[in-house]
Amino acid sequence: MFPVELNDWLNDMNKICGYSIEEYSYMIEKFHGTLAPGILIGGFMVDLAMKKKPKGELFDFLCETATCLPDAIQLLTPCTYGNGWLKVVDVGRFALTMFEKYTGNGVRVFCDVKQMELYPEIKGWFFKQKIKQQQNKSALISEIIEAGHSILSTSIVQVDPTLIGKRRRGAIGVCPQCGEAYPAKDGKFCLACQGTILYSKILS
Amino acid sequence: MFPVELNDWLNDMNKICGYSIEEYSYMIEKFHGTLAPGILIGGFMVDLAMKKKPKGELFDFLCETATCLPDAIQLLTPCTYGNGWLKVVDVGRFALTMFEKYTGNGVRVFCDVKQMELYPEIKGWFFKQKIKQQQNKSALISEIIEAGHSILSTSIVQVDPTLIGKRRRGAIGVCPQCGEAYPAKDGKFCLACQGTILYSKILS
Repeated sequence: MFPVELNDWLNDMNKICGYSIEEYSYMIEKFHGTLAPGILIGGFMVDLAMKKKPKGELFDFLCETATCLPDAIQLLTPCTYGNGWLKVVDVGRFALTMFEKYTGNGVRVFCDVKQMELYPEIKGWFFKQKIKQQQNKSALISEIIEAGHSILSTSIVQVDPTLIGKRRRGAIGVCPQCGEAYPAKDGKFCLACQGTILYSKILS
Repeated sequence: MFPVELNDWLNDMNKICGYSIEEYSYMIEKFHGTLAPGILIGGFMVDLAMKKKPKGELFDFLCETATCLPDAIQLLTPCTYGNGWLKVVDVGRFALTMFEKYTGNGVRVFCDVKQMELYPEIKGWFFKQKIKQQQNKSALISEIIEAGHSILSTSIVQVDPTLIGKRRRGAIGVCPQCGEAYPAKDGKFCLACQGTILYSKILS
């Protein structure tokens, strides 16, 4: 028999934010559609962030990619894209930061490419060395579970003040061109009527 | 007894994508944290889009605001921010488009401010005429449920080709500055190392 603490630790080793791999896989499939490798890795990233988070009670997330990773955050934390507690600045890096919502003190978790040498399937997938049809998905998923936190690194960061706090839309006006409500701070017309491309045709 | 079709129609009147208001409210609270008025309206918007959608089997969503509305889409459809079937172009309009994923043919649903005159609580909230503490939330929620689709309008649109299809990151490189993986098409360095502001300090 292991002491209770060690038992807890061993149990915890195979969990992602308290969920078993099976439970988390089910959650991924239900929300995201398929058991995408990126969300599984993302689960370990959120888990590690929670274990290394700085002091504080209320945390937001910053995600550096729009691909897969935001869904891991949305599944495992109260932070969603629509409630504003998850912010995405898509610089294309597979990294997230969990930060105290008022001070911006946070822990950044990123995929450490140097640590991937031990895991050829992960490396091949991450660097797109094989096309999807050539990947061995079950070997890839097994490697991700085996690797756990070991392909991740962390750093302590201060999130830029421009990314802290609630999105404030300010006063609402009615756009004189499209007749819809929009944040008046955007100018005389809404951003769509100023030229942001959304539609090539409005048919009726 | 009403004929079966009329009964179905009457039952359907009080449902959002097949869920009762109570069920959907529970889903909102569980995912989004609070029963935000915007996601309740968003539910009616997704519901209307599904009823008016053009022919096709596979649909994506385009959302014109980052506030609240993306969560209604994520809750009620298979489209999430992380799986790429929900795209957000934040022009600050409370509008969404459900479009056939290959052709871009779609139905756009937006809040029609002219129709809000009958609903003073909705109008007051939508145009931020009252601060949050002065709002009568239960009256607002009741008005939203009563209003249903009646404060919404639709148009038939063609989503711009630049917004159709999967985000393609292309080949992956290692940024010579930060040492992390990034989409090589972004240039010699990743966008963060090129100056996109994320952190004011990286402490360790």
